[in-house]
Amino acid sequence: MTSPRPAVQNSPANRRDLMWSRSEKAIAQKAFDAALERELQEVIQEAKQKAGQIKEPADLWELEHYLTERGKEIDRKYDYRYSQLTQVFGRLLHEGRLCAAYANDKLKSIRSFAELFAKYAA
Amino acid sequence: MTSPRPAVQNSPANRRDLMWSRSEKAIAQKAFDAALERELQEVIQEAKQKAGQIKEPADLWELEHYLTERGKEIDRKYDYRYSQLTQVFGRLLHEGRLCAAYANDKLKSIRSFAELFAKYAA
Repeated sequence: MTSPRPAVQNSPANRRDLMWSRSEKAIAQKAFDAALERELQEVIQEAKQKAGQIKEPADLWELEHYLTERGKEIDRKYDYRYSQLTQVFGRLLHEGRLCAAYANDKLKSIRSFAELFAKYAA
Repeated sequence: MTSPRPAVQNSPANRRDLMWSRSEKAIAQKAFDAALERELQEVIQEAKQKAGQIKEPADLWELEHYLTERGKEIDRKYDYRYSQLTQVFGRLLHEGRLCAAYANDKLKSIRSFAELFAKYAA
């Protein structure tokens, strides 16, 4: 899946949003790590369930495919560059993976990305 | 792992061995399928066990790596071309994956490959 690149990305308002203060960075790191950890725990539970249900070789290669694809997806999604982080948080918020309290004063930008993701997902 | 290519492969005696009669082919197919099925069942059991022991994300990617590597290894090992089959059975016999009764009158050639694999593995 290619991430959509919304037009707001290069607006002057957005460039200001890309400046992260030290305290914002600390909050962002915590929110990012928590969302990543939750998603990895989901994959662990799903993998255990799939493995428990394996009956024939095809199920085995289906599990391998699932793990490969989820690994790639997580690598792409969790991009901790400050230039990408507002968009990353927008997606996480849209997917219900981010506690909005973390989003602090960047909430407006993050919400606008969440809305864009909602539009793309519709 | 690259399969060793023993020198006996192109000897006249070996070329005669490559001629498989109809009944030999039927026996070979049965032995091949049974060994493949047993090996796949081993991978299924191992995958279930590994999945049950997953505690952290690293274990997840270790399971993915295990499945990918075992899949590739099985694809390479179970090569059902009559030109390869004596060598394939030699390896399976060496690994204890082949009931010697199946090997019938090609047993001598197959055993020589099993001995070569034993030498390479030493």
